[in-house]
Amino acid sequence: MLGATGYTGRELVGLLARHPRVELAFATSQGEAGASLRAVHRAAPELTLRRAEDAPLGEVDVVFSCLPHGESARWAEAALQAGARVIDLSHDLRVVGEQTPAWAREAVYGLPELHRERIAGARLVANPGCYPTAALLALAPLLRRGLVAGPVIIDAASGVTGAGRAPRRELLFAELAEDFRAYAVGNVHRHLAELRDQVRRLADQPAPELVFTPHLLPVKRGILETIYVPLREPLPEPRQLWLEDYAAEPCVRVLPHAPALADVVGTSQVALGVTAAAGVSAPLLIVLAALDNLLKGAAGQAVQNLNLLFGWPETEGLPL
Amino acid sequence: MLGATGYTGRELVGLLARHPRVELAFATSQGEAGASLRAVHRAAPELTLRRAEDAPLGEVDVVFSCLPHGESARWAEAALQAGARVIDLSHDLRVVGEQTPAWAREAVYGLPELHRERIAGARLVANPGCYPTAALLALAPLLRRGLVAGPVIIDAASGVTGAGRAPRRELLFAELAEDFRAYAVGNVHRHLAELRDQVRRLADQPAPELVFTPHLLPVKRGILETIYVPLREPLPEPRQLWLEDYAAEPCVRVLPHAPALADVVGTSQVALGVTAAAGVSAPLLIVLAALDNLLKGAAGQAVQNLNLLFGWPETEGLPL
Amino acid sequence: MLGATGYTGRELVGLLARHPRVELAFATSQGEAGASLRAVHRAAPELTLRRAEDAPLGEVDVVFSCLPHGESARWAEAALQAGARVIDLSHDLRVVGEQTPAWAREAVYGLPELHRERIAGARLVANPGCYPTAALLALAPLLRRGLVAGPVIIDAASGVTGAGRAPRRELLFAELAEDFRAYAVGNVHRHLAELRDQVRRLADQPAPELVFTPHLLPVKRGILETIYVPLREPLPEPRQLWLEDYAAEPCVRVLPHAPALADVVGTSQVALGVTAAAGVSAPLLIVLAALDNLLKGAAGQAVQNLNLLFGWPETEGLPL
Amino acid sequence: MLGATGYTGRELVGLLARHPRVELAFATSQGEAGASLRAVHRAAPELTLRRAEDAPLGEVDVVFSCLPHGESARWAEAALQAGARVIDLSHDLRVVGEQTPAWAREAVYGLPELHRERIAGARLVANPGCYPTAALLALAPLLRRGLVAGPVIIDAASGVTGAGRAPRRELLFAELAEDFRAYAVGNVHRHLAELRDQVRRLADQPAPELVFTPHLLPVKRGILETIYVPLREPLPEPRQLWLEDYAAEPCVRVLPHAPALADVVGTSQVALGVTAAAGVSAPLLIVLAALDNLLKGAAGQAVQNLNLLFGWPETEGLPL
Repeated sequence: MLGATGYTGRELVGLLARHPRVELAFATSQGEAGASLRAVHRAAPELTLRRAEDAPLGEVDVVFSCLPHGESARWAEAALQAGARVIDLSHDLRVVGEQTPAWAREAVYGLPELHRERIAGARLVANPGCYPTAALLALAPLLRRGLVAGPVIIDAASGVTGAGRAPRRELLFAELAEDFRAYAVGNVHRHLAELRDQVRRLADQPAPELVFTPHLLPVKRGILETIYVPLREPLPEPRQLWLEDYAAEPCVRVLPHAPALADVVGTSQVALGVTAAAGVSAPLLIVLAALDNLLKGAAGQAVQNLNLLFGWPETEGLPL
Repeated sequence: MLGATGYTGRELVGLLARHPRVELAFATSQGEAGASLRAVHRAAPELTLRRAEDAPLGEVDVVFSCLPHGESARWAEAALQAGARVIDLSHDLRVVGEQTPAWAREAVYGLPELHRERIAGARLVANPGCYPTAALLALAPLLRRGLVAGPVIIDAASGVTGAGRAPRRELLFAELAEDFRAYAVGNVHRHLAELRDQVRRLADQPAPELVFTPHLLPVKRGILETIYVPLREPLPEPRQLWLEDYAAEPCVRVLPHAPALADVVGTSQVALGVTAAAGVSAPLLIVLAALDNLLKGAAGQAVQNLNLLFGWPETEGLPL
Repeated sequence: MLGATGYTGRELVGLLARHPRVELAFATSQGEAGASLRAVHRAAPELTLRRAEDAPLGEVDVVFSCLPHGESARWAEAALQAGARVIDLSHDLRVVGEQTPAWAREAVYGLPELHRERIAGARLVANPGCYPTAALLALAPLLRRGLVAGPVIIDAASGVTGAGRAPRRELLFAELAEDFRAYAVGNVHRHLAELRDQVRRLADQPAPELVFTPHLLPVKRGILETIYVPLREPLPEPRQLWLEDYAAEPCVRVLPHAPALADVVGTSQVALGVTAAAGVSAPLLIVLAALDNLLKGAAGQAVQNLNLLFGWPETEGLPL
Repeated sequence: MLGATGYTGRELVGLLARHPRVELAFATSQGEAGASLRAVHRAAPELTLRRAEDAPLGEVDVVFSCLPHGESARWAEAALQAGARVIDLSHDLRVVGEQTPAWAREAVYGLPELHRERIAGARLVANPGCYPTAALLALAPLLRRGLVAGPVIIDAASGVTGAGRAPRRELLFAELAEDFRAYAVGNVHRHLAELRDQVRRLADQPAPELVFTPHLLPVKRGILETIYVPLREPLPEPRQLWLEDYAAEPCVRVLPHAPALADVVGTSQVALGVTAAAGVSAPLLIVLAALDNLLKGAAGQAVQNLNLLFGWPETEGLPL
């Protein structure tokens, strides 16, 4: 794997080390090349971190990239050309735009609950962002049925591992403890393009507009999204749709109460809750979605995709 | 004062102890009567906590009540009848309904930025709730001008002192640390009646509907509300309205960036931020409001009201 | 198992649910009888919590008791009489005194690294306290060799799950966040009798005196003990003793650096570090010991003992 | 003042801004020169941060230096030569050694409770370290009376502002939350030289040896030291000594219970508690000392020294 020392990379090292069908062949780190992978994760196999330039991309069946946004794509391309399948955890390949080169257009968006079949046959998987994973699984039952009447407001909060492991003053303990703040206010977060693109694919008519406001929580792991959805018509038993759609999904739980971080941290599942707003004239649903940003929001989903790629049991090696 | 040992009561004891024009005559606690007030707050004067039944309500100029919701009203009535002015920090007197007795109808809603003149002449002040204080100050500039086009979504998060000091399992450190959760989901929180009532008074036309979802943050103090407001028309410089309306307000700051808990904890000010949502067809403002739930959200606002009642400088004794 | 709803009980439910050789036959709770065990731990089997009085003690191979101190002993006795083996996680059976009844004298102190053989053949196991587990594993290499010259100072800090799940004001989030405090100061903690008793058994000469000061940390899980040991003579390579004694121990890690909570939380291992104090005339070692109070300090160690009782692989079902 | 943007510098800016007799003439920052001081502390006067090279050292009565260790001394010298008095908050001038140049030898150790008279007449004050302040005030009553019989063990824990504001990976929220760790284990912390030097001055006979182990707490502010002191003879009422020595001290509180961070954070006081260890044959005292590392441990003590330098009331401008 490429990029083993960030929070996502470390989480993935831990999952792969315990996966019964995986042998980790190499791990890279530009900053810590030469050190032992064991220093990154104590359950790791005995490997020495190397630079990406020295990775034997052609000698493995699949390459995971946890490299930073903007740097990952070229390594994904190199790994593909070397003959490996690729699961890319960066933002780089999630949205196809006009500038997207031909090789990147074959990337399948790796949200198994929506694209299971296509993932199984893919050579290149773009592992979804943490915020979009929660929002899309929350909204899919409504979007598929064309039930959304207007702009959807996604108010989201994430633990700080979501902001990465590079030392930045604003991520110091002494800055964040006892604080809570919004960021990227005004509908300008990078994940919006990814969200809009996938919402468009799900909706069978003009897709609803989205408003997305992320916040930074003083916790290590976990995302909670509180999503406000205006409906075309009232739904008598709204939770029924989610129970129906996700009945067979091993990584989705539809709870009878409001999900909290405590329901999901440490697992590779998303927990969903659905409540109709009282006291409003036009019907509005409040859908809550919680997940562990490093598991179902990143490394756990990457392993779920790995299992699909190779036809293994979908949750093998995943904490549930 | 009545009810000195909860989080709000303790905060108020501390403020009153340092207020240069106040002498605290008595403090009550049903559970800790007989103990020293110093055990509650070390800056307190040497007083022994007594039971409310033993409080000399008729010998003081003003009685503060920090008693629990449901118990406070009858003591407010007793204090009024004994000749004192009353500042009631409970929910009991904030909303006038059909059941409200005559004596309680004279209560003035103690949000100085909206009702300063009426507070100055009041005998009975209903000190606002923490969530409504933030929301009303955030929304007033739009409501007054009739600019709100549709349902307003108030997504709010509060530190745990807002949930009170009575021992409950769900408030234990081991339950809340590293967690984040919504509660009262579906538009059913007690503060909604208060919010709707005040919004109705502010709007010069049919008041917009409200959707309110509170969350519990793993921090001690502070509220942040992220408020989504559909507008009748785009506002070219939206922040201008707030700067204008609050130019002379000592307890309101309109920030050029998104306010965070760190901007307000420890002060009796609300911090506001305003941003227009990009990428949506109908204009939508995102208004952020932050305050310290024990200060501007409770005890600090009570002291602000006290200063108004007696014609003292409005921020005397307040941390700003 | 008896007592499934405290923090230790819940942890044990989770471990037993995942243990490949265990079938959980019943779980009790005096306060929550009638509720589903799934509400306590979502990985639990479908069982309804019952009262201890209704537990089929005679129909199982082994009974775990996570009942509170003072209440556990009589249930342990009842289970023994009903023919079950018993692993008792309370303090009740850890120290044999003059008042100890005959049946309780057969209890084996369940610290596998010290008493593995005796545990294997036991009918009744007294599972050690969390603080003593850390201290005894830290000190055993010195005590066995008679190297301790004087009073040993054990300065310890524990996460708040160690204080139990009963709602108490002093354990509220709003009381403990951003705080740190000592308790039972002056060598008066209940665990001292247990510690002294075991130290006496380990030392081959008059046992050293102990001074023990616990502190409460604003974290959920984990214990770190910083132990100051005056030595009879300098040890040239002090860490060597621990490496030697614990070379084959699956639940003990001797680290080359100072262990931290982050090294052990989530695992059933103790991590040890050893450093000689510089700049002092009489030799003094500083031994650090870290463990997860709910795993190696309680439920994990109970499962380790279970595995010994039945001759299964010692770490089966344990996170390492 | 020099160095306004670290945690100590910011705290000092806040204290000086509110001090009724102080006018802050300039503030420096090598990294943020050109920015407004208001961005550092919102209560600050309207000043633009400048580089130290551009500071008008000769135009002020007193210069505070919050520069990093190793960089501060030369600026202290420059300020002295320019005619200002100097309060240096770094480690640079606290210990006089063989290499200490002549000008630095006149530095007075700024612990008012021990050196009040000398501070009042000083031109150069070395403001003490946070750990030594707590330990020295805890130990002085015993050292002065020659009551200490052997090595003193100082087990200390500090909040993370003590580690500074420079971005370092090990200080990230995601690294420190839910963790607790020792550092500088083995009696090798920089503060030991300072501690030993001052202990030597206090003891009227060979000074006791010291063993010092600091730990990093997941809190923002506060230090708690648990100090183990072997005594020459039992003290019948040990707390009496501290009550006596500190009866008139405004910044020292001797509590009847074990002090905690919550007793001192936000104040410029140290809180002390004293307990004799039970169950040991040789008398041993456990002295607990708590303070706010940014106030009594740094900026608050600097202001206390300022007040002494100029003959103002000693606690003017300090939160107590």
